[in-house]
Amino acid sequence: MTTSFAVTEALRAAVDDRLQEFVDRQRPLVGAPELAPLLSAAKDFLAGGKRLRPAFCYWGWRGAGGDQDPAILTAAASLELLQASALIHDDVMDASDLRRGLPSAHRRFEALHEASGWLGSARQFGEGAAVLLGNLLLVWSGEMWRTSGLPPEALAAAQPVHDHMRTELMCGQYLDLLEQAQGGGTFDSALRVALHKSGKYSVEQPLRLGLVLAARERSEWIDRLCVDYGHKVGIAFQLRDDLLGVFGDPVETGKPAGDDLREGKRTMLVARTVAAASPAQAEDVRRLLGDPELDDEGLARLRQIIEDTGALAASEEMIKQYLYDALGALDHAPLTPDAREALTELAVAATSRRS
Amino acid sequence: MTTSFAVTEALRAAVDDRLQEFVDRQRPLVGAPELAPLLSAAKDFLAGGKRLRPAFCYWGWRGAGGDQDPAILTAAASLELLQASALIHDDVMDASDLRRGLPSAHRRFEALHEASGWLGSARQFGEGAAVLLGNLLLVWSGEMWRTSGLPPEALAAAQPVHDHMRTELMCGQYLDLLEQAQGGGTFDSALRVALHKSGKYSVEQPLRLGLVLAARERSEWIDRLCVDYGHKVGIAFQLRDDLLGVFGDPVETGKPAGDDLREGKRTMLVARTVAAASPAQAEDVRRLLGDPELDDEGLARLRQIIEDTGALAASEEMIKQYLYDALGALDHAPLTPDAREALTELAVAATSRRS
Repeated sequence: MTTSFAVTEALRAAVDDRLQEFVDRQRPLVGAPELAPLLSAAKDFLAGGKRLRPAFCYWGWRGAGGDQDPAILTAAASLELLQASALIHDDVMDASDLRRGLPSAHRRFEALHEASGWLGSARQFGEGAAVLLGNLLLVWSGEMWRTSGLPPEALAAAQPVHDHMRTELMCGQYLDLLEQAQGGGTFDSALRVALHKSGKYSVEQPLRLGLVLAARERSEWIDRLCVDYGHKVGIAFQLRDDLLGVFGDPVETGKPAGDDLREGKRTMLVARTVAAASPAQAEDVRRLLGDPELDDEGLARLRQIIEDTGALAASEEMIKQYLYDALGALDHAPLTPDAREALTELAVAATSRRS
Repeated sequence: MTTSFAVTEALRAAVDDRLQEFVDRQRPLVGAPELAPLLSAAKDFLAGGKRLRPAFCYWGWRGAGGDQDPAILTAAASLELLQASALIHDDVMDASDLRRGLPSAHRRFEALHEASGWLGSARQFGEGAAVLLGNLLLVWSGEMWRTSGLPPEALAAAQPVHDHMRTELMCGQYLDLLEQAQGGGTFDSALRVALHKSGKYSVEQPLRLGLVLAARERSEWIDRLCVDYGHKVGIAFQLRDDLLGVFGDPVETGKPAGDDLREGKRTMLVARTVAAASPAQAEDVRRLLGDPELDDEGLARLRQIIEDTGALAASEEMIKQYLYDALGALDHAPLTPDAREALTELAVAATSRRS
């Protein structure tokens, strides 16, 4: 196992296998034929994905001296169940049609309802089924974590971090709903939401989980690394997300071009654009942002404003700066050398990704 | 502590206190002013309730020889968090306006959105916030259970039951969605859904949790009691629920009169009515059941049909029979005498309740 393991197929394959095994283990409970659509949707939503969260967790573990116990891969893989749950619920809340180029969960169940000629509202059935599927994956993420086979004292040490992460995720998503509803937030408020909703549970907390599992306790250097590296990579990760939501290639993101603009998402990128816009530009943003019918011309206009106000360049600059600071933090932590190298790779991968 | 503790204010007060304490313990995480509506909604939805699930769990514990360790009350109270989560999500899925006489969670957040003059769809905000609140309570139920202070070996023995219950609940709710969508189910299919969706996690599993916590293992007599008593009380509980949804007094149920009929719920009561209906009665049921605008006259007509077909009397008869069988099962289990008495009281309370 070399340091390139950080982002290679090997980790992905291990995570895939553990998820598959876990879901199969549930078959005695969820094996009834009527539940098949729930199970196949779960499997499809767990396939693919960048597996960044398991990688941060795994390399936290290795970085604090954890051995090659295969149980860590099971524990790390469980974070994908949490992530899949959050995405499925997120798509219901945003009424998004697509996820990774495929119909979102609620659209999938809506289509099942329509194709089956069932009674009542197909939309309502689709949303209900997606909420339940998300709940199932949320419950399973906790179960898979606890039954990973890691030593009880390791799990006990990390459990408060795990609990904290889950509460923080739900609250962060609520803050995000609020930010969109209140509109016109500042860069700082958008940053706060991004950090709570996504940054922390994408990078900082998975890393902290791995570190605390191996060290059997939270310690000062762990908390410092989680802030100085994890926090910063998390924000840069989210800044990249903002850019992909506006400039991303639909073929790579699996989402329609400019989806965030059509949804009117109040991202850090948008906050910065609005703050720097001329009155004419601001008027165009007000008119176009959040228009569900936004066409290619409107999309091009918004992209132009984001460029012309300097918001695009400023975001790229910030990503670079956060990444630079984060990598510096790695030098000061008593990490194993291979973990340091892997976390360097991961920080770059998380902030320069194209999907 | 006397056997009348089973259904007295003392248990309710203890459960209330533990829930209050737990939510307050989360305040450092969820204390931001913007999150206040989430926290106050959580508190309101946890207030009241019949506390039947904690009572079954508590008396299972005592029945298998558990002592008066106050930690059992915390573990038992955590079941109310799961229940509140399920009700909040259920109301979103059914688009219900009321819960216990107050606005349902999604309507509450919808009203907050409207009163605040926020951007976007108030309905979408309300539903999103309610999904997140339900998630938060779901996550908290697991955390409160694990951190109850019960001995680790007791928790370890009961954890598979706990995991099983949560998966079963989500799958049961999906089966319920399916049953409503497919319509015209038989009594047997409605019974199966009722058992999986509600019966098991209302009675059988809370009881099993308490028994296994105290016994430190699943054993034959525990499983037999959970089926012969728990199963049967669960079904009778749900049959009573069906009757309350049609004939219940709105002042006591906190739901509009005949709410289940207006929603078109395919309950055991409805299945039995349809099976025994004359062609003219069947035609009226088809026309009126599930009509959201169902008026007093239509409601009266449906009630009349339910009576005239004998479905009402048959349901009351079944409740009596299930209760009789369940109480018989108590005699054969090696329970402590006070638990036997309390479980007798609880079975009666669960199946003769008026709300």
